[in-house]
Amino acid sequence: MSADLDPEEFRRLGHAVVDWIADHRAGLEKLPVQTGVEPGWVRAQLPAALPEDPAPLQDLLDTVDRVVVPASTLWQHPRFFGYFPANASLHSLLGDVLSGALGAQGMLWSTSPATTEVEQVLLDGFAAALGLDPAFTFAGGGGGCIQDSASSAALVALLAALHRASPGWRETGATGAERVYVTSETHSSLAKAVRVAGLGARALRVVDTAPGSLAMSPDALAAAQRDDVAAGLRPVLVCATVGTTGTGAVDPVRAVAGVAREHGAWVHVDAAWAGVAALCPEFRHLLDGVELADSFATNAHKWLLTAFDAGLLWVRHADALPAALSITPEYLRNAASESGAVVDYRDWQVPLGRRFRALKLWAVVHGTGLSGLRSHLREHVALAADLADRVRADPLFELGAEPSLALVCLRVVTGAGPEADDAATREVLTRVNASGEAFLTHTVAGGRYVIRVAIGSVSTGPEHVDQLWQRLRSEAVAVVGQVSP
Amino acid sequence: MSADLDPEEFRRLGHAVVDWIADHRAGLEKLPVQTGVEPGWVRAQLPAALPEDPAPLQDLLDTVDRVVVPASTLWQHPRFFGYFPANASLHSLLGDVLSGALGAQGMLWSTSPATTEVEQVLLDGFAAALGLDPAFTFAGGGGGCIQDSASSAALVALLAALHRASPGWRETGATGAERVYVTSETHSSLAKAVRVAGLGARALRVVDTAPGSLAMSPDALAAAQRDDVAAGLRPVLVCATVGTTGTGAVDPVRAVAGVAREHGAWVHVDAAWAGVAALCPEFRHLLDGVELADSFATNAHKWLLTAFDAGLLWVRHADALPAALSITPEYLRNAASESGAVVDYRDWQVPLGRRFRALKLWAVVHGTGLSGLRSHLREHVALAADLADRVRADPLFELGAEPSLALVCLRVVTGAGPEADDAATREVLTRVNASGEAFLTHTVAGGRYVIRVAIGSVSTGPEHVDQLWQRLRSEAVAVVGQVSP
Repeated sequence: MSADLDPEEFRRLGHAVVDWIADHRAGLEKLPVQTGVEPGWVRAQLPAALPEDPAPLQDLLDTVDRVVVPASTLWQHPRFFGYFPANASLHSLLGDVLSGALGAQGMLWSTSPATTEVEQVLLDGFAAALGLDPAFTFAGGGGGCIQDSASSAALVALLAALHRASPGWRETGATGAERVYVTSETHSSLAKAVRVAGLGARALRVVDTAPGSLAMSPDALAAAQRDDVAAGLRPVLVCATVGTTGTGAVDPVRAVAGVAREHGAWVHVDAAWAGVAALCPEFRHLLDGVELADSFATNAHKWLLTAFDAGLLWVRHADALPAALSITPEYLRNAASESGAVVDYRDWQVPLGRRFRALKLWAVVHGTGLSGLRSHLREHVALAADLADRVRADPLFELGAEPSLALVCLRVVTGAGPEADDAATREVLTRVNASGEAFLTHTVAGGRYVIRVAIGSVSTGPEHVDQLWQRLRSEAVAVVGQVSP
Repeated sequence: MSADLDPEEFRRLGHAVVDWIADHRAGLEKLPVQTGVEPGWVRAQLPAALPEDPAPLQDLLDTVDRVVVPASTLWQHPRFFGYFPANASLHSLLGDVLSGALGAQGMLWSTSPATTEVEQVLLDGFAAALGLDPAFTFAGGGGGCIQDSASSAALVALLAALHRASPGWRETGATGAERVYVTSETHSSLAKAVRVAGLGARALRVVDTAPGSLAMSPDALAAAQRDDVAAGLRPVLVCATVGTTGTGAVDPVRAVAGVAREHGAWVHVDAAWAGVAALCPEFRHLLDGVELADSFATNAHKWLLTAFDAGLLWVRHADALPAALSITPEYLRNAASESGAVVDYRDWQVPLGRRFRALKLWAVVHGTGLSGLRSHLREHVALAADLADRVRADPLFELGAEPSLALVCLRVVTGAGPEADDAATREVLTRVNASGEAFLTHTVAGGRYVIRVAIGSVSTGPEHVDQLWQRLRSEAVAVVGQVSP
């Protein structure tokens, strides 16, 4: 007797779970985006020991309602404006549960051919839809794959770069001379990657941004590389960011890539959040110069309606990652791999095991079409432009950085100087979040505290941005009233 | 207008997908476990370009039926005996889709408290249920987390070990003197991890197995460490395996840990497949000595009914992974993290983003109880013991290694010597797989080709093992008849 549900029981319980989800999503707007639970509150609600006996699904759903939802930040809420969005669209859930149902492992082509080939087709299709150079497609000699995150994409790009820079790397490891170039605005995953890859933090060169900007200065990069090479060091990778996490700044990819190539460094373009915007021709200029890069990453699980995890990574040479990462024990040997006619995606990533993640991405593009994806992106960019206009027009606020796509950074203006503005901005953010009506996060840009408004949740519409704005205004009135009565 | 499904449309389509899954699982037994598609077949069936317009879900389901299922290896099939099982139970799918519906990011406690605390509660609960030393629980100063795979668990254990061995590691990276100890039977993820971590393959010391066994020799480990230390090298990690991938061999963890500690090496126990068996008291002896280890990994997504990915990792010191991996940019700063009162799981892994994977594991243990999990494991071990008895009793077969839990390695006996037996064994495996009736993989043990029969799919029962055995026998009769007519 199987320990699993009988398919007919699953049919009944699966319908109940689908109903729970439909009700949850339909009711989301009425819930606070987050409540202020204390550390340990969730643990205190749950039994410490695992249950000895099975219990009905309804008990679990009740606990989810009673404990999990109130102690979750509701990232799918239409008034979630924090971090970057993490679009878990209902389309993508349909594909994701199908993937679980098939339950195939895609580590090798031979362990389940469709798992690999559907991913290849989709990644080639998205490369074309984003306007990437055909060199990034399998047909063009490169290829794409789905990573769990842009962090992992950056790590494997670095490993491929290390291997390319020094063919002895697989055997003898890092030499201590490798250098990796970023800016202060580059995602922290690069700082993590140099440590994971055994280079240590000293390998990370933080290149200056151009004056008055948060984008990398190609001149500063050139100088840093020149100094390093003169000191016997080895530029191995330059990370150019399209849409930084803090403020959405865009490094000049074409110029950066030109400089990077002078010393043979790998150019990785991290467009984790912003890259998907290139589906719209009017935003494709953001990817200018990416055709000169060695790898390009953008996440379908941020703004492109696909439930985490679905980090898309393309490389210019299909053998770059396998050359760095492939290892074949006897139990994984198979005729297809040895024929060279197939892609074994385990060699494109750190883990061996691999879920059929392409199915959720496929369900999204199938259910929305590219036209639907473009509408989704355009609507949020338009809402951000409206919000930025309101900020500009309101003496209580100012922009904290140039708006970038659907990200607006703003500050409260007290009239009592920048330190007072910092404090007031922080206080407004705290009050908005405490209200439960919306959720915001912050960054520091140009040394000043700013509120980030990242528009992009699956169901965010004009009314939600309007509600946020009204709340921001009323809190700012209250706070600024306190600052300068 | 949202690009996503309306909740009521989702309700309707979600029911349809659940019905598809129920029908698929109910009909699985009648399908071939795999068909022999050629490389490129799937790609040729699908349009190269992404669709411009949305299309009905039913079209996608039809394509899945027509293209994906026939070109997938059906890992959930009751006659899938390859690799190790990848149990995607229907229980776990219910939890997984709930996780997607909440769509929370658990990178920090503060980004969604329940996501972190439910995982802590479950990992503490599983530690107790497995009989792990309380030091591995949060209450005991250690703690557990869910990784995507045992590969990633081994990598982060190695990173923690490198940091512990040399506090300068985060700043200056690998020195070239680090050494990592495995055997020829250790999972290839360790060979990958030393490369990823920038140590290079030379850092990997392959320690001899004990004579007549496939388990690590503590004496050989002691000698290797001694030689390395004398040569100025630094033992940083020893990986002991409980249940090797090839044959299920078990390294003597207690003795290995004792030797490893002489030079301060981190002891990582990789029990990816076999570790979960310790839920049954009668198999708990497999984990003897784990209380001396620094980290312990076992996968709920192999044999424990939880859809990939759910690799469980425990460490003895809760600060070990954050000490190696934590990096905090401004946009991730928050009061809860700075209070020290919470766990931020991003610091326990390479990626920043993090899905609520605990929910699928919770759905499993909630739906089956520990009693159901134990029955699941025990049934497969009993089936393996029966199969091993049949192998022993049949002159056409011999065991290729000692049976281990639910893994039976067998060879065909031709009477014409070991080379002929190798060839016949390989031919029988090819024929069984080509039949579509069952799916098997191989390894090489003691220099000889062996068929691995890994019993453990969600719905595998006695009748399926019996069908496999009948097929193995009839193919062996045919093949051996050819070899020695």
